[in-house]
Amino acid sequence: MSVIERIGKALEPLMLVMGLVSPIATLPQIYKLYFSHTEHAAGLSLTTWVLYSFIAMLWTIYGLYHKNPTIWVGNGLGFLMYLAMVAGIIVRVGITF
Amino acid sequence: MSVIERIGKALEPLMLVMGLVSPIATLPQIYKLYFSHTEHAAGLSLTTWVLYSFIAMLWTIYGLYHKNPTIWVGNGLGFLMYLAMVAGIIVRVGITF
Repeated sequence: MSVIERIGKALEPLMLVMGLVSPIATLPQIYKLYFSHTEHAAGLSLTTWVLYSFIAMLWTIYGLYHKNPTIWVGNGLGFLMYLAMVAGIIVRVGITF
Repeated sequence: MSVIERIGKALEPLMLVMGLVSPIATLPQIYKLYFSHTEHAAGLSLTTWVLYSFIAMLWTIYGLYHKNPTIWVGNGLGFLMYLAMVAGIIVRVGITF
């Protein structure tokens, strides 16, 4: 467990940053959908991105309820990113699974 | 804040389940990549899914360190799902952004 303990401790002050990485990491996927690879939009799962959006929305509400920015900042941004994916898929492909 | 309070309270006992929804929601995206829409794999961002995997791995370690299954169960499963996306993209498209 010593590696886990060392990494776990090191992550403690980085929680807010860690919550922002996944939303920001969605940008290249959004770029491919909207600009560079629009013809491949059908390969994206509407189900997946709708559920990602829904869960991020619930976590955002949960974080606001607990007044915990570590939870709501990253999830709020995530919600916007995943919603952008949902909108892009619907515009390009319509309803798909 | 009353809607937020009501939803926030209702979510409290559902945290472990909520952590499992996003990983499981990745299954249709994996299915499209591996089976039904393999020709559209180039539309998936390797950067995005590598970073999702990396962050899920860090959260898994963090959850194990705190012996908190609410954190590590969902993120552990998420790590495997996102890694499956990474592997599928590399096999189908090779290195892409």
